[in-house]
Amino acid sequence: MNKHRLYTAGPTPIPPAGLLAMAQPIDYHRSERFCELMLEVECHLKYLCRTEADVAVIASSGTGAMECAIVNLFSPSDEVVVIRGGKFGERWAEMAAAFGLRTVSIDLEWGSSVDPSQIDAVLRDHPGTKAVLGTLCETSTGALHDIRGLGEVTRRHDVLLVCDAVSALGADDFRMDDWNVDALVSCSQKGLMTPPGLGLCAFGERALAAGESARLPRYYFDFRRYRKSLGKGQTPFTPAVSLLYGLHQALRQLREEGLDSVLERHARLATATREAVKALGLSVFAGCPANTVTSIRLPDGFDGKLLTSTLRDRHNVIFAGGQDHLMGRIIRIAHLGWMDDYDVIVAVSALERGLRECGLDVPLGSGVSAAQAVLGGQATEHSR
Amino acid sequence: MNKHRLYTAGPTPIPPAGLLAMAQPIDYHRSERFCELMLEVECHLKYLCRTEADVAVIASSGTGAMECAIVNLFSPSDEVVVIRGGKFGERWAEMAAAFGLRTVSIDLEWGSSVDPSQIDAVLRDHPGTKAVLGTLCETSTGALHDIRGLGEVTRRHDVLLVCDAVSALGADDFRMDDWNVDALVSCSQKGLMTPPGLGLCAFGERALAAGESARLPRYYFDFRRYRKSLGKGQTPFTPAVSLLYGLHQALRQLREEGLDSVLERHARLATATREAVKALGLSVFAGCPANTVTSIRLPDGFDGKLLTSTLRDRHNVIFAGGQDHLMGRIIRIAHLGWMDDYDVIVAVSALERGLRECGLDVPLGSGVSAAQAVLGGQATEHSR
Repeated sequence: MNKHRLYTAGPTPIPPAGLLAMAQPIDYHRSERFCELMLEVECHLKYLCRTEADVAVIASSGTGAMECAIVNLFSPSDEVVVIRGGKFGERWAEMAAAFGLRTVSIDLEWGSSVDPSQIDAVLRDHPGTKAVLGTLCETSTGALHDIRGLGEVTRRHDVLLVCDAVSALGADDFRMDDWNVDALVSCSQKGLMTPPGLGLCAFGERALAAGESARLPRYYFDFRRYRKSLGKGQTPFTPAVSLLYGLHQALRQLREEGLDSVLERHARLATATREAVKALGLSVFAGCPANTVTSIRLPDGFDGKLLTSTLRDRHNVIFAGGQDHLMGRIIRIAHLGWMDDYDVIVAVSALERGLRECGLDVPLGSGVSAAQAVLGGQATEHSR
Repeated sequence: MNKHRLYTAGPTPIPPAGLLAMAQPIDYHRSERFCELMLEVECHLKYLCRTEADVAVIASSGTGAMECAIVNLFSPSDEVVVIRGGKFGERWAEMAAAFGLRTVSIDLEWGSSVDPSQIDAVLRDHPGTKAVLGTLCETSTGALHDIRGLGEVTRRHDVLLVCDAVSALGADDFRMDDWNVDALVSCSQKGLMTPPGLGLCAFGERALAAGESARLPRYYFDFRRYRKSLGKGQTPFTPAVSLLYGLHQALRQLREEGLDSVLERHARLATATREAVKALGLSVFAGCPANTVTSIRLPDGFDGKLLTSTLRDRHNVIFAGGQDHLMGRIIRIAHLGWMDDYDVIVAVSALERGLRECGLDVPLGSGVSAAQAVLGGQATEHSR
């Protein structure tokens, strides 16, 4: 008996209808049927990002979508502010440096979120700044950042806001247009319930204007090429056809549930997970936790790597550990995408058993009970 | 009744075992099971490319793999020779220009193949040339290029040879190491019988050395990042997990059949198709046709677009037409990947009927008979 349960913040489980859609015989990407599918995907993506801007789908991982934003917006030596509070904020910084941008780093303790007033001060000190590169949910820590607040600041300074919503799109609230986000990047394998391999990139008016004078060399990620194809059901290069079958199915499912309901579900699952963590005497690692993934601080001296391997090997339950200096010190449980109340119950149940098997004397059932209370409606505390 | 038959030179049909592999629940890409699968994929790819070099798998289309070669090998203003005899040779030229390289173009009539002595002369005239960018099968015309001959010339001049084997890998003979190919690019959706979304890039010793001094900015396509992960079953960024399940299955199938047998099969299917074309009083467009795809020159005044749409709408058989100035003037039939004798019989049968329905008075059955003679063993003329 080998039932496998995946709680990583990407890839996330794929709904059976999506798996079946991807298992159908492949079609020519210039066919009418495929073009219609692409047009529907484009329309659903605008709905999901709450934007009027065009959202391009690229055959790449989320990092490819990040590169798409960088190479289309900037010229060598442009100055950008990066918020480094985890692995993916650091990725922005590394990538900006690789493309010869000058970066001003806001270094946060991992797990904390940026205060928009901090960015306000930095932008006052650096009047030549071209853009702020932010992250909605820093997947490595589970911290949610105030993108709405950042958008107010960047707009006031007439600076672009580029947002990595890789893991949080479809899980935490995000409003590209209302929040003054100029460029958005995301991908398929998180809230979008599709396997990895599709990057998403959306450029608002101000980003498009910046793109016209951007001088970084580009071809595969040249947004102008994607833009020409948008609205025609086409792509500049051969699209990842089968993954798009899966994405199309997932987006239909998301739309049927309704984005507000989807976000409410993620809020409920996240709340239940956090309450369970507290009931077990542990604490949530992120100061301002996202509804995408919950990272849990493990007691000093506790072997986090043993916990993830125990759960994997004995229970077939896959949690992610910490990355870089957090390795072994936190674990991360995603409640993301194709997940419901009972998936959280399983996760918490496995967490309790794993902790005990690794020598931490938690009261069996206390986490599950706390989660039940939230999920059953006794203590609903929907975040935002 | 709506049986759909796909003869485009990408995507090509996916074997059912591959479709099923991709339909299995997704796994974490850091799991042991996935790492083992990646290691097998790496090993099979070396076999397929006939190389000792590392072959990286990138989440991208074939164009992304081309960009991987460009950004890792060159610095701005480097001089490269491009062979422009079709759409994909032109893509090399466009891409080289986008990255600020100086290009010397060898302009061929579409359908013809380059003579290595031509390149020899050009390299003598341009002693500063860093590389020649070639194409094994120019998919837009079906022309095969003499990469082995090019390799002799480039090695003599101490110039790098970069080869786009996007459509021909696993269909036409290709020997990366024996032929002195320094960098190879290919992808999943042609001879590799996997949906689009995976780019392949292999760098030999000389390419790796060139990469050390290459100054084009790069991150997502930085080969150094991929190389660090190779041999560990890892990837620097989230891989396209489900597509890799499909690729793994397809490569096992290829290896079971044996590369020599696979190439022999493609040669037989191509020969049968060409013989059928001649028997129908038409001619093969390419002077030196590849075994990947057969392009057929249509009679002057004949409406090639009507032919492809008739076959699509009435017969559910998908051939590709010509691109750019060849639109309407040629059609292209791929016999590529998961294709056998009877797929060619169907293609030729449909071709005959489509031609007649579009007003060309071809003798019904003559093409099929000619193909039968080859496939049944009466007139085997295995190319190379």
